[in-house]
Amino acid sequence: MSKRIITIGRTYGSGGRLIGREVAVKLGYTFYDKELIELAAKECGFSPDFIQANEQRSSFGFFSNLTSHGFSYSKDTLPPADMLFVAQCKVIQDVASKEDCVIVGRCADYVLRDFPNCLHVFIRSTEEDCIHRAITYYGIPKEKAAEEIRKMDRHRGAHCKRYTDRTWGASENYDMMLNTARFGIEGCVDLICDAANRSKETVRDIVY
Amino acid sequence: MSKRIITIGRTYGSGGRLIGREVAVKLGYTFYDKELIELAAKECGFSPDFIQANEQRSSFGFFSNLTSHGFSYSKDTLPPADMLFVAQCKVIQDVASKEDCVIVGRCADYVLRDFPNCLHVFIRSTEEDCIHRAITYYGIPKEKAAEEIRKMDRHRGAHCKRYTDRTWGASENYDMMLNTARFGIEGCVDLICDAANRSKETVRDIVY
Repeated sequence: MSKRIITIGRTYGSGGRLIGREVAVKLGYTFYDKELIELAAKECGFSPDFIQANEQRSSFGFFSNLTSHGFSYSKDTLPPADMLFVAQCKVIQDVASKEDCVIVGRCADYVLRDFPNCLHVFIRSTEEDCIHRAITYYGIPKEKAAEEIRKMDRHRGAHCKRYTDRTWGASENYDMMLNTARFGIEGCVDLICDAANRSKETVRDIVY
Repeated sequence: MSKRIITIGRTYGSGGRLIGREVAVKLGYTFYDKELIELAAKECGFSPDFIQANEQRSSFGFFSNLTSHGFSYSKDTLPPADMLFVAQCKVIQDVASKEDCVIVGRCADYVLRDFPNCLHVFIRSTEEDCIHRAITYYGIPKEKAAEEIRKMDRHRGAHCKRYTDRTWGASENYDMMLNTARFGIEGCVDLICDAANRSKETVRDIVY
């Protein structure tokens, strides 16, 4: 049987990473986030520090669908940020083939779009809630929080557009979207676990 | 205590209306869909047939936010389609003030955006699933189903843009989005009921 995968996209400050970690703990899945960067680093030969520094710094552009090249790449022909993306794609597909896991960010919903047993989730929240979380848990100064959130979300949107040609957060790319401000971290974790436990294969329609 | 409201936006063929009806039955809420049209009809003096015929036929445009005028209108100054929208806004706010209810469509998420205890849901599905449902339950000929779905969704998007200046289905306007093809009708009903029973007031954060 193919592995059970949950991908989680999230706006900055929405608590999506924490939710993903808690979901992984609750379901007994492996959790991938920054770990992915390190695995990708080994793959393409860059140091984790270099990759972390370059992550999501890609400028906005109209980069054509890189993955259509079947993840083949050459260090001579691709800029480092693009090589990094290709390497991450390979890592994501690799771990998704081997173990039940939760993967936060990294365009995993796109990279695994044709994988069976994938639950694609997007987490967002209100601006007020994101600001509160950014200040309280991420240590961002109050006066800079709103600006930092907008900047990070712009970067994520641009990164997504550049590498997948998709609109970041657009509902057609996900099976489930939740607003953290409405349900809280625990509520989102419970709802996602419940959703994950509903096997795709047992879905049946009821007559109108 | 304010009433508990669930608004459901949905793509054509996603089963959103059926899901809304089942949620209402399960939670013991009143269900509003076409009933709303009739209530609105009484409000503005048009016959239900006239309203049904004009519903969602508004041409695409950049109509400014009508509701900023506080729902006041005059038969002499507004086109019939706009009067209908204003009348529906009044009906939606009226029923939401009086009873626990599920309201499908009619831009209710926007109309009730400042209401407390509202759960705003959007239902979508895959094209394949929408086509199957349109053929099986709505009686649309197989060869016309894909075109009809695209047309209806275009109309809904245009209607939403015209009257709310929002992008129809954009995740920032909802608390929850579900893909019917992933969870089935029953799965969506269960997940929404579970979500609705999680009171906003009891939400608490857990430490990062």
